[in-house]
Amino acid sequence: MSKLSRAQLVKRARGIKLVIMDIDGVLTGGLIYHLVDQAGRLVEFKGVHAQDSIALSWLAQEGIRTGVISGRNSEGMAERLKLLKVSFIHQGRLDKKTVFDGILIEAGVSASEVLYMGDDLPDIPVLKAAGIAVTVPSGRAEVKAAAHWITRAQAGAGAVREVVELLLGAQGKWRAVLARFEAGPAD
Amino acid sequence: MSKLSRAQLVKRARGIKLVIMDIDGVLTGGLIYHLVDQAGRLVEFKGVHAQDSIALSWLAQEGIRTGVISGRNSEGMAERLKLLKVSFIHQGRLDKKTVFDGILIEAGVSASEVLYMGDDLPDIPVLKAAGIAVTVPSGRAEVKAAAHWITRAQAGAGAVREVVELLLGAQGKWRAVLARFEAGPAD
Amino acid sequence: MSKLSRAQLVKRARGIKLVIMDIDGVLTGGLIYHLVDQAGRLVEFKGVHAQDSIALSWLAQEGIRTGVISGRNSEGMAERLKLLKVSFIHQGRLDKKTVFDGILIEAGVSASEVLYMGDDLPDIPVLKAAGIAVTVPSGRAEVKAAAHWITRAQAGAGAVREVVELLLGAQGKWRAVLARFEAGPAD
Amino acid sequence: MSKLSRAQLVKRARGIKLVIMDIDGVLTGGLIYHLVDQAGRLVEFKGVHAQDSIALSWLAQEGIRTGVISGRNSEGMAERLKLLKVSFIHQGRLDKKTVFDGILIEAGVSASEVLYMGDDLPDIPVLKAAGIAVTVPSGRAEVKAAAHWITRAQAGAGAVREVVELLLGAQGKWRAVLARFEAGPAD
Repeated sequence: MSKLSRAQLVKRARGIKLVIMDIDGVLTGGLIYHLVDQAGRLVEFKGVHAQDSIALSWLAQEGIRTGVISGRNSEGMAERLKLLKVSFIHQGRLDKKTVFDGILIEAGVSASEVLYMGDDLPDIPVLKAAGIAVTVPSGRAEVKAAAHWITRAQAGAGAVREVVELLLGAQGKWRAVLARFEAGPAD
Repeated sequence: MSKLSRAQLVKRARGIKLVIMDIDGVLTGGLIYHLVDQAGRLVEFKGVHAQDSIALSWLAQEGIRTGVISGRNSEGMAERLKLLKVSFIHQGRLDKKTVFDGILIEAGVSASEVLYMGDDLPDIPVLKAAGIAVTVPSGRAEVKAAAHWITRAQAGAGAVREVVELLLGAQGKWRAVLARFEAGPAD
Repeated sequence: MSKLSRAQLVKRARGIKLVIMDIDGVLTGGLIYHLVDQAGRLVEFKGVHAQDSIALSWLAQEGIRTGVISGRNSEGMAERLKLLKVSFIHQGRLDKKTVFDGILIEAGVSASEVLYMGDDLPDIPVLKAAGIAVTVPSGRAEVKAAAHWITRAQAGAGAVREVVELLLGAQGKWRAVLARFEAGPAD
Repeated sequence: MSKLSRAQLVKRARGIKLVIMDIDGVLTGGLIYHLVDQAGRLVEFKGVHAQDSIALSWLAQEGIRTGVISGRNSEGMAERLKLLKVSFIHQGRLDKKTVFDGILIEAGVSASEVLYMGDDLPDIPVLKAAGIAVTVPSGRAEVKAAAHWITRAQAGAGAVREVVELLLGAQGKWRAVLARFEAGPAD
């Protein structure tokens, strides 16, 4: 798959209606922690950067729906994503393309209207189908080969934010986000 | 907003009576962890550096009050901040300017007597109002544009300490802090 | 112990039937967290990278069994490793060579058919016995001296993945792993 | 306080009978995590590197006692340190010199026979009293000025290990530690 120029990327970004991403190694840096609680439950947790998570909520507010497809299961992550108004939350699924196809039907969008972010082999079938395929600097070599674009920011440290700003910028919506926060007194 | 020279910064620092800051991405490096406990509660936690947290308690001891305004909710963080004698603790609030204005009234200080630290868009209205507006190296571009000063130390790794030392130094109080700890035998 | 050339390493890798590793500082970056829960239990947890853990499951799927020998005890880690189809899980054991010898008998393989990864002194007796002895960039000097190969990727950030890709590549099985994930539509 | 040459350091290290250290920013990288459990307890936890913690147990085995003096309280850390055979565990104490003096009496050693590691202002009175005063690369400037030696390895990532190897090496005990682990078959 050939890479897109910045201009081509921005052009495609105008038509994106849905952003779906892998969690581990994309929205997080990749580290997963496990503990067993007193009831014997295996509890999974991981860290998400505040600058990335707030950006997910901005996509939703500006009418671009969001979703995650993760091979892992974290109840804490699911609860947190609901608060960030993520519409499609699928965890514990490695057959990501099947899940992806189901989301397209439910959302009523075509694959070309979706931006997908992933970092590892299970993401490749979805990256090949998505209108814009994005990976991160720590994405595996085979994933980079399948992606249109590699973020400058690291996974779990601004990669998702970078994608959100690109999309909202391309669609002329970034100014509206800024306006909500810049109503302070003139300097 | 134009940046301040070091001399101008120190001059303004002399009049600061209150330090308010964002938590995520300022007092922490930005990562937020979530887990769901046995009772089904969503528990949020994050890491604060010991060199930053002890410095918050020194501000309070030297008569400079402290506060936090965070968009997120962490019960563990709130309990910890109380132990560090933080006077104003507001979590779960994205309308930071409203909270800020309320704190000014409660504290009986003017905005020009407040130093505020933030890293993301919700901090901008407060940064524009504060006497000294500080951000961190990982602050977003729009936030850096609104700040008087960018710390050298990273968020969650000394940025708050750097601000505390600047303030206590400018107000001639750093020597008193050191004196408490340097009463060892002569070398 | 003399280092192996890449060609020698690949040749030996063809005969590996079992991969055993230390956990802390190999599968993790080395950091261990402890908390005491309400029942007074000491709970230990640590972070594993998603790109490493998924690779462990691929080894099992391709018929190369896996095992861990750790000086530490983490119930959460044990539960997670079972899900990744790790066959031999021994925690809380510093006499690693004794455990290693027991695993060889149980698995019915010779030491020359085992690849072992370790980073610290307790790993040395096992590294000296294993067919391929691997360490990480943060392995102690004495461990590096005893190893055939030092990974390029850091512990807890791809070191295990690098070993898995080497083994599966040498045994002609990497293509099968990729094929499972690359069945997307032609570009 | 003037720095010591390597030769002077090794000479002093021969007489060290007790190693005492701060926890946060020395044995850990400095980050402290807090959560509130279902019973409303504030639970504090932090990460220690496996290569550092195992080295603490080697000191004890070789007859050099160990202790910690920390301004913070972590039940999980205390339980873990007991397993590492740390003799003197004092948490929640900022008056470190008082605690230090008490440990000297209890241990029956003089201050000149103690190596102390610290990174922040509360450590300075103890550093000034100790036979060998050590800090880490992230130690505050005032602490570096009071220390005889700054480790090359970072806090929470080998700094304690570096000190342990120096001491055991100077006292001719490192070979005994290695011997326990190098009894593998000849190469």
